[in-house]
Amino acid sequence: MTEHTVKAFDEDITRLRGMIAEMGGLAEVSIQEAMEAISKDDQELARKVIKRDKKIDAIESDVDKLAVRIIALRAPMADDLREVIAAMKIAGMVERIGDYSKNIAKRVKKIEAGKRFAPLALLPAMGEIAAEMVHDVLTAHAARDPVLAREVIAADDKVDAFYNSIFRNVVTYMMENPATISSAAQILFVARNIERIGDHASNVAEMVHYAATGLYPPEEDEEQGEAGKA
Amino acid sequence: MTEHTVKAFDEDITRLRGMIAEMGGLAEVSIQEAMEAISKDDQELARKVIKRDKKIDAIESDVDKLAVRIIALRAPMADDLREVIAAMKIAGMVERIGDYSKNIAKRVKKIEAGKRFAPLALLPAMGEIAAEMVHDVLTAHAARDPVLAREVIAADDKVDAFYNSIFRNVVTYMMENPATISSAAQILFVARNIERIGDHASNVAEMVHYAATGLYPPEEDEEQGEAGKA
Repeated sequence: MTEHTVKAFDEDITRLRGMIAEMGGLAEVSIQEAMEAISKDDQELARKVIKRDKKIDAIESDVDKLAVRIIALRAPMADDLREVIAAMKIAGMVERIGDYSKNIAKRVKKIEAGKRFAPLALLPAMGEIAAEMVHDVLTAHAARDPVLAREVIAADDKVDAFYNSIFRNVVTYMMENPATISSAAQILFVARNIERIGDHASNVAEMVHYAATGLYPPEEDEEQGEAGKA
Repeated sequence: MTEHTVKAFDEDITRLRGMIAEMGGLAEVSIQEAMEAISKDDQELARKVIKRDKKIDAIESDVDKLAVRIIALRAPMADDLREVIAAMKIAGMVERIGDYSKNIAKRVKKIEAGKRFAPLALLPAMGEIAAEMVHDVLTAHAARDPVLAREVIAADDKVDAFYNSIFRNVVTYMMENPATISSAAQILFVARNIERIGDHASNVAEMVHYAATGLYPPEEDEEQGEAGKA
């Protein structure tokens, strides 16, 4: 590339990374607010999270548009092309994280207010770990830090363990309180959504590692984790 | 592009489309076999589905590699670039469809054989519609057919309706049969996985429509459907 093109490319990449940082920030807030809405039965906050998802989707499509324009105009090679492609994939994963938060928020109204019950207490700690994973993977992306990316991948095991214990707890609770089964089932889905957020944060971390090093991180036997899932 | 590059590009695109067709075919078989494994408590078939997912993942990463090479070597513009980008996105969505089938297969061993019970009967019909959506969206992709793509998007409402009715049925069943709650919860997750397969087939259909026409299809108010989801 000419010096001019190089400079223009760097500016484009900086914009691309900025858009992903913004998307990620919104997704991070949505996880926290979705969990708060579930815990406090806060319908208003739930609506806010659902509304924010449209903004996240819009930024994703802006990322795609810009990435395609960069490729078309600058014809980047090797590492540069890899970074642009990674940006598109990361944007897609962050969009999915946003979707899961939206799905959690949509369940608030399905958990009968009369039944703000025990199993709810199990969720916030799990939600915090997932939100932290999303926060850290964004930091890793901004800092091109493959070590932090691998830490995020490792943290996913904690989320999976939480999920399994919540599943067992909720099922036991359902057996003892059949009248609350419909609401309890919603809690199972919320836990599953948080668990999926952890999976996607971990996928983003792999992509960050790949964009930074050109290599995918050594397999943290995710299969195992998954197989163990309730 | 020179005539030579054009010819080379067309060959690349044909390969790319062939790889997606193969991935999609494997994903389609996996949905059907996962459902059969669930219905017949067939652990062997379930293992086959779980194993096949690695093959699907491998093809996705081949699609990405080839797409990046095409972009780097041929520097396609406008419609051509759009087709290559769409191929990468479609491969990612098909990979997710494969994941959901794998997740369904992994639940086979969690539904206690002693409890091959009523709610199971609700799943196959739902699974068939989802498998048909995947089949049709692949045909739409191969034929660059935006009309068929829109039909796939419309079919997703049927899958959502099925999901809601299964959810209500299973919850009622749980209340009446507390001893089977753990297995019944697995049925809820299977239904939810099928429902997500429908969502992704519908996303692929949007991408096929976009690649074929340059426009996203008119919104079939998916929001509505989602909001209605149990």
